[in-house]
Amino acid sequence: MPQISFSRRLRRTPFSEGVEAAGVKGYTVYNRMLLPTVFQSVEADYRHLKSHVQVWDVSCERQVELRGPDAAKLMQMLTPRDLRGMLPGQCFYVPIVDETGGMLNDPVAVKLSDDRWWISIADSDLLLWVKGIANGYRLDVLVDEPDVSPLAVQGPMADDLMARVFGDRVRDIRFFKFDMFEFQGRDLAVARSGYSKQGGFEIYVEGSEIGMPLWNALFTAGEDLEVRAGCPNLIERIEGGLLSYGNDMTDDNTPHECGLGKFCNTHTAIGCIGRDALLRVAKEGPVQQIRPIAIEGEAVPPCDRPWPVFADGKRVGQVTSAAWSPDFQTNVSIGMIRLSHWDAGTAVEVETPDGMHRATVQERFWI
Amino acid sequence: MPQISFSRRLRRTPFSEGVEAAGVKGYTVYNRMLLPTVFQSVEADYRHLKSHVQVWDVSCERQVELRGPDAAKLMQMLTPRDLRGMLPGQCFYVPIVDETGGMLNDPVAVKLSDDRWWISIADSDLLLWVKGIANGYRLDVLVDEPDVSPLAVQGPMADDLMARVFGDRVRDIRFFKFDMFEFQGRDLAVARSGYSKQGGFEIYVEGSEIGMPLWNALFTAGEDLEVRAGCPNLIERIEGGLLSYGNDMTDDNTPHECGLGKFCNTHTAIGCIGRDALLRVAKEGPVQQIRPIAIEGEAVPPCDRPWPVFADGKRVGQVTSAAWSPDFQTNVSIGMIRLSHWDAGTAVEVETPDGMHRATVQERFWI
Repeated sequence: MPQISFSRRLRRTPFSEGVEAAGVKGYTVYNRMLLPTVFQSVEADYRHLKSHVQVWDVSCERQVELRGPDAAKLMQMLTPRDLRGMLPGQCFYVPIVDETGGMLNDPVAVKLSDDRWWISIADSDLLLWVKGIANGYRLDVLVDEPDVSPLAVQGPMADDLMARVFGDRVRDIRFFKFDMFEFQGRDLAVARSGYSKQGGFEIYVEGSEIGMPLWNALFTAGEDLEVRAGCPNLIERIEGGLLSYGNDMTDDNTPHECGLGKFCNTHTAIGCIGRDALLRVAKEGPVQQIRPIAIEGEAVPPCDRPWPVFADGKRVGQVTSAAWSPDFQTNVSIGMIRLSHWDAGTAVEVETPDGMHRATVQERFWI
Repeated sequence: MPQISFSRRLRRTPFSEGVEAAGVKGYTVYNRMLLPTVFQSVEADYRHLKSHVQVWDVSCERQVELRGPDAAKLMQMLTPRDLRGMLPGQCFYVPIVDETGGMLNDPVAVKLSDDRWWISIADSDLLLWVKGIANGYRLDVLVDEPDVSPLAVQGPMADDLMARVFGDRVRDIRFFKFDMFEFQGRDLAVARSGYSKQGGFEIYVEGSEIGMPLWNALFTAGEDLEVRAGCPNLIERIEGGLLSYGNDMTDDNTPHECGLGKFCNTHTAIGCIGRDALLRVAKEGPVQQIRPIAIEGEAVPPCDRPWPVFADGKRVGQVTSAAWSPDFQTNVSIGMIRLSHWDAGTAVEVETPDGMHRATVQERFWI
């Protein structure tokens, strides 16, 4: 397996020192920043995540900050989700689309106040799109990347660990809401969110210099909870149907193809740049869509390129994320499947580097 | 050293199969695509590059294509370099700046015709900035990423190898010009350019399916020239003063700070979005600038974060790329140094992970 070559361009994070001390074994690059992928092994990390609590360096979820009188207007231009009812203290998962309705990112929008927003981005330089739009439309808004690095605390013991560091009030944060909590004299936004189905929080760490103090505080407080350094887990996120921008969808896809139609209010999202382009697909539905697919046979290798999906010798889609699930004793995967074959129970074949595997479209994701 | 974890999101290239067969040992990620960094060793690759010829998979230099009546207008909006005199068949190195004059990329612009351009980008999603601007200003232009993957042929024997595959006419291409050459029924743009000082070409391979046929044709034709798979070489590019966006400069820096003032015609580049912001620095000059810095002592470790540069105990800059040079028997490096200390011969100190090293600002880069 080739090594990763470090350079300043692959940005380190406020927590890299802790990640290294914890023995990180693998990295990917996400928003030009290092994102750990393995500590013990993907399977051991998965077991631990499902039974204990982990601290994840997800600094790579960079923030795009919108600040100024046109911030809310700009935010609505970016997404077909109707944001009129959104209150400060809420987080919304928002598909971001270009003028053709193609997805540019699938971030979480964080509304700090009416004129101040963070967009907690997936893997694309959304900052550049937002800056370009703000400039082209001459909006009265500042757009930049602040010194904010999310740290996730995930797993069934997340509430207990967080309460020890931030107090019992963290237990009251509801799903996809955030509140402000003090740490070493700083006010930090803490949201109940994260890229797993095991429950937990994301701490928006503002100010790199408090990164390691917070990291260390969490590990000290959680020793008897068997807290470990972790990272988004490939197996668990596929079991949970958590999509990955760049893997499971690209700017070729509409939100509707990605099963994100429920986050689109195309008729009422007035001002959204991609609205016109999406009206038809919003009404008539897409011709292909994301589906969970169970792949039979031995454990498949890592999915590093789209694997074609066939039915009766005809190509009907592709698989873009796959892993062996120890809990479900099958290969779990995420694919984009044509309308003709997307019904649950449909038998298909997936062409992997190890050969053709029989597979079945599932009704729902595994967890 | 941690491994890189593969996924579809870290895009493979039309040449990945050849790169793997050649035994690639290290990767970086560049524009969300795999870029090889080592084959034998960085030093062995360096020796070979300087004496023979290498074929480089630089597909990660993605193209942003501008097509339509407003293409030239849009291109000029992006850069402070005056493009009025640029002819089809020319390549221009163009700093791209935002409305504050901060660098967003330092690509090569390729003028195919008056209404069709490619921007061969460094590591940032420039596509999103260009699409945002085109949309915001309602320009009559298509902006997208075509299926074009550059393959570089670099080294002193590059002309000989290329002539065997494309005919002797390639020898006539002048520096930073391109011409069209036929390969297996396709017309490909071939430019005399590349990210080394050893001479050579970049082939803009249009159509992924001819990637491996071309790769194989080059290796078959070059067997007796000892052609090898290679990649941009850290040592050689620092010796040659070839900057790396994301390493040596970011959107914090103006082109003038990067020593790219000679590529700016701020007064006549009418329409450039960052023009107003750059007028003052163009006249008065920057307060810090890129400099070659020789670092004394043992070979330094990889520079994976900015290393502070001091003089008389005061911080006067930072080093962002560094490597031991076998040919010059010193550590060669690229730094950004304050005006007060940027004169050639100035003694400074560089704080590396291995401790403080004495260093000297150089008059010019090494090659």
